[in-house]
Amino acid sequence: MDIGFIGLGEMGAAMVANILKAGHQVRVWNRSPEKAQPLAARGAQVVATPAEAFAGDAVFSMLADDAALREVITASLLEHAPRGLIHANMATISVALAEELATAHASRGVHYVAAPVLGRPDVAAAGKLTIVAGGPAESIDRIQPIFDVLGQKTWRIGSLPQQANVMKLAANFMLGAAIESLGEAAALVTGHGVGMQDFLDVITSGLFPGPVYSGYGKLIAEQRFEPALFKARLGLKDVRLALAAADAVTTPMPVASVVRDSLIEAIAHGDGEKDFAVLGQVAARRAGR
Amino acid sequence: MDIGFIGLGEMGAAMVANILKAGHQVRVWNRSPEKAQPLAARGAQVVATPAEAFAGDAVFSMLADDAALREVITASLLEHAPRGLIHANMATISVALAEELATAHASRGVHYVAAPVLGRPDVAAAGKLTIVAGGPAESIDRIQPIFDVLGQKTWRIGSLPQQANVMKLAANFMLGAAIESLGEAAALVTGHGVGMQDFLDVITSGLFPGPVYSGYGKLIAEQRFEPALFKARLGLKDVRLALAAADAVTTPMPVASVVRDSLIEAIAHGDGEKDFAVLGQVAARRAGR
Amino acid sequence: MDIGFIGLGEMGAAMVANILKAGHQVRVWNRSPEKAQPLAARGAQVVATPAEAFAGDAVFSMLADDAALREVITASLLEHAPRGLIHANMATISVALAEELATAHASRGVHYVAAPVLGRPDVAAAGKLTIVAGGPAESIDRIQPIFDVLGQKTWRIGSLPQQANVMKLAANFMLGAAIESLGEAAALVTGHGVGMQDFLDVITSGLFPGPVYSGYGKLIAEQRFEPALFKARLGLKDVRLALAAADAVTTPMPVASVVRDSLIEAIAHGDGEKDFAVLGQVAARRAGR
Amino acid sequence: MDIGFIGLGEMGAAMVANILKAGHQVRVWNRSPEKAQPLAARGAQVVATPAEAFAGDAVFSMLADDAALREVITASLLEHAPRGLIHANMATISVALAEELATAHASRGVHYVAAPVLGRPDVAAAGKLTIVAGGPAESIDRIQPIFDVLGQKTWRIGSLPQQANVMKLAANFMLGAAIESLGEAAALVTGHGVGMQDFLDVITSGLFPGPVYSGYGKLIAEQRFEPALFKARLGLKDVRLALAAADAVTTPMPVASVVRDSLIEAIAHGDGEKDFAVLGQVAARRAGR
Repeated sequence: MDIGFIGLGEMGAAMVANILKAGHQVRVWNRSPEKAQPLAARGAQVVATPAEAFAGDAVFSMLADDAALREVITASLLEHAPRGLIHANMATISVALAEELATAHASRGVHYVAAPVLGRPDVAAAGKLTIVAGGPAESIDRIQPIFDVLGQKTWRIGSLPQQANVMKLAANFMLGAAIESLGEAAALVTGHGVGMQDFLDVITSGLFPGPVYSGYGKLIAEQRFEPALFKARLGLKDVRLALAAADAVTTPMPVASVVRDSLIEAIAHGDGEKDFAVLGQVAARRAGR
Repeated sequence: MDIGFIGLGEMGAAMVANILKAGHQVRVWNRSPEKAQPLAARGAQVVATPAEAFAGDAVFSMLADDAALREVITASLLEHAPRGLIHANMATISVALAEELATAHASRGVHYVAAPVLGRPDVAAAGKLTIVAGGPAESIDRIQPIFDVLGQKTWRIGSLPQQANVMKLAANFMLGAAIESLGEAAALVTGHGVGMQDFLDVITSGLFPGPVYSGYGKLIAEQRFEPALFKARLGLKDVRLALAAADAVTTPMPVASVVRDSLIEAIAHGDGEKDFAVLGQVAARRAGR
Repeated sequence: MDIGFIGLGEMGAAMVANILKAGHQVRVWNRSPEKAQPLAARGAQVVATPAEAFAGDAVFSMLADDAALREVITASLLEHAPRGLIHANMATISVALAEELATAHASRGVHYVAAPVLGRPDVAAAGKLTIVAGGPAESIDRIQPIFDVLGQKTWRIGSLPQQANVMKLAANFMLGAAIESLGEAAALVTGHGVGMQDFLDVITSGLFPGPVYSGYGKLIAEQRFEPALFKARLGLKDVRLALAAADAVTTPMPVASVVRDSLIEAIAHGDGEKDFAVLGQVAARRAGR
Repeated sequence: MDIGFIGLGEMGAAMVANILKAGHQVRVWNRSPEKAQPLAARGAQVVATPAEAFAGDAVFSMLADDAALREVITASLLEHAPRGLIHANMATISVALAEELATAHASRGVHYVAAPVLGRPDVAAAGKLTIVAGGPAESIDRIQPIFDVLGQKTWRIGSLPQQANVMKLAANFMLGAAIESLGEAAALVTGHGVGMQDFLDVITSGLFPGPVYSGYGKLIAEQRFEPALFKARLGLKDVRLALAAADAVTTPMPVASVVRDSLIEAIAHGDGEKDFAVLGQVAARRAGR
């Protein structure tokens, strides 16, 4: 396929590398052009404007946040985009913006697919992302070959793009809640002289198997918060978006509020670039340890 | 072995049945003697006082809460107990009482083992409990054959009995936190028209495999809170104890406080006998649904 | 003085009426022009565009929220505004927007004063508002005569306009926290058969004199939430802004999070137009009453 | 009158001094007898057992907590107390224990009055306490002369003693909530460069007059947490009791949970003996300051 790709951060760069490896043509654009160089070496065509990326069979975007997206995906860009182009936005953005973009694209005859991903940069590099896709089925069908390169599984959520964003945000809320709970439990058990790893052995062998409890639990047990696989700062971004999405449908989420407060506390202590697991340190500090 | 067993509620009765089936002699006592009858039919010897159960190789207890235990395990009972007897208390009690009992038993030459279990009555009936044991290794060694009948795995936590209680309470806190989070996420996603089961499919396939998320998530998705496998009322009891244990080591647990408040709210709405999953209903009600 | 006034909601209309009564000339603009009619009858000059209001000695604005302000106070409006004009924005807006507006005005040579008010429409009508003003002292000096008509007291906070907004939001957070606390206390004491009014008598006679505790407490005691003097929906708006302002300086505010969640719950139950005191009903409902 | 007084801590000693000054005879008892000496010098009769204090017209008690009370007010003490004696317990204890004591006294023919006080030791010394009395009206009538010496106002709550305890605990919860809110607001406004004292001036001049906001607010503004007038440790004791009383009537109190968590955090940082206002330091620390 002939595709465009906008946004070459850690996640985006890893994704483009996989798409190139699979033999597709990729026009790449990034605000700071130096990030495009390593991909040019692998065969990507570096373009000078987002509009040049908005062409071919489909364009994918992976920008940092709502603000970055708003600056790049302008009314003028959509106006000049070829009718029938598919834009798959894979970034985690607000539900409100996803809804707004869906409308704006539709009014210009551009197909909008929301396809946020579950998985950190290492998972992206391995082509093992979980993709949560929302939007018109035919559009998703056409770009599914690219999704198959990027991820191990694509979940199709429905025809409203923003529902995929809701799903993603809810999943990351669950992640944050699990890590915060692990941090609190760690403070409790170690306060009584019980080893956190012993505790993890018990709960992960039965109640809570899977990567989250054992992985983040281990980071908390070892107080190893760097290097970050998923930064606290980005975790906070997602929890904020989950709370905003909940507010929009008048849904209180008290645990999400707690996780938000704890992440703010982490960042206030200079730990925003540390791993999401640093919530364990917040819980320990509150307990005076 | 020749053992005593005190407390024949749902859990205790299921456990005694398994011990009898394995060929051991069991003297059973319960405050309301009618609960002992079905076990008498299976070969248990019904005794009239706790003191008669406090004899033989070891005595096990599975009483409802701290208050019940305090009434039965009196100073006088311990004074008249045979020196060297092992008492394994398998109920979930406060860390403070566990510590107090450990001291009281030691001063009377009775060995005290705390062995709270993870698992609901159906798991107890299947002999598949997870046992978390704290206390002197030699004592646990001697009663391990009984533990092997009751559970699929015994975790040995350390030589201080109360540490087993801390472990158990922390595990049940994790359970409560996961259910509360599921309830909040359900309110969020369904508020945006996303199916809860679809959400569960996504998160349990990768992030959160295992029985808790899929099991309680399904109950929430189907709003099926009866019959209860683990009652909200008992969940609250455990979260209260976890908070008290945390308070004792000056550890704030804000998520535990949220879970406690939600469970109180469930009980205030007459749902104390419903399943722990009823937290999903609390979250939905808060969102006006 | 010759002034413009933008935004004729309940608060704005009451304020303009007082300014007219004091003998000043007022050009008024409102999105829905019919709201201007009653003021025209009192001598206001109704203008057709915000630009016409942006003239004379000073212009005051009292719009509903950030979105309304962004639509009216455009770059083009500021560009065409007379140099040296003073714009006093009296609405409660986000700290972020206040900061942005201060910069935008300065770059166009328009003086920006933030002057949010404490007080409900009845207080505005009585000319008894408390005004919290931030911005250049000379600018505030020049419009102080108008402030003196509108309020009983002007607090000058500093030269940065947004600091006045922070002050206002923090004050309204305090209000929300007090009402939420009253609601929780009411649920506690009435749950034990103690009258809420008796409780209020005790605490307002010593610890908590003043209008908030006795006034909102009485509404809660009598479960009288309509007509609203300060709507729950607007209370939520302010608490959201307080949380955003806190987030911007990495400050967790757990009580603010609780108040936010409770207000969302109120709105989810259709009570957004009821008085802020409806938090008492939320607390009672959580307790099953 | 001829009265007994049990418990000569800071509060009790100040109260006895006032009673002696007013010309009454007082038999005093304290666990550590040296605390009785200064009062003996002022005319108190020091007795060797609580039973000796349980005589005369009435006996007053002011012990530290539930545990202290349980040790002193034993079944045997009540059994040997003169029929018709009035026991006024002025300490802040749990609602559950108050209920239990009311029953136990009644069954022995001793009149039980709960009369917890609002006010710190300095207020007690000035004879300006606020007394919240629950119990039979005739009993309260008979000891009212003593209450008049101790306090400036006695509120009669009802005939159930424990209702006075509920009232007291709810009042102290309100106090804790106000201080926590002040701490959070301080972190917010100072984070934006606004002076806390300026903020206090605004809110205490209108919304929140009275001693709590100005007094605790000033301590927070000046970060002056010693010497403590009301210790954080004792504040936590009361919030715990309020939460327990709320739990007993299935009432969630999320703000109380936040205050509890913050107080635990204060104590975890070694600040239990500092003033309740130290909550302001907790909020500042969470914000990284």
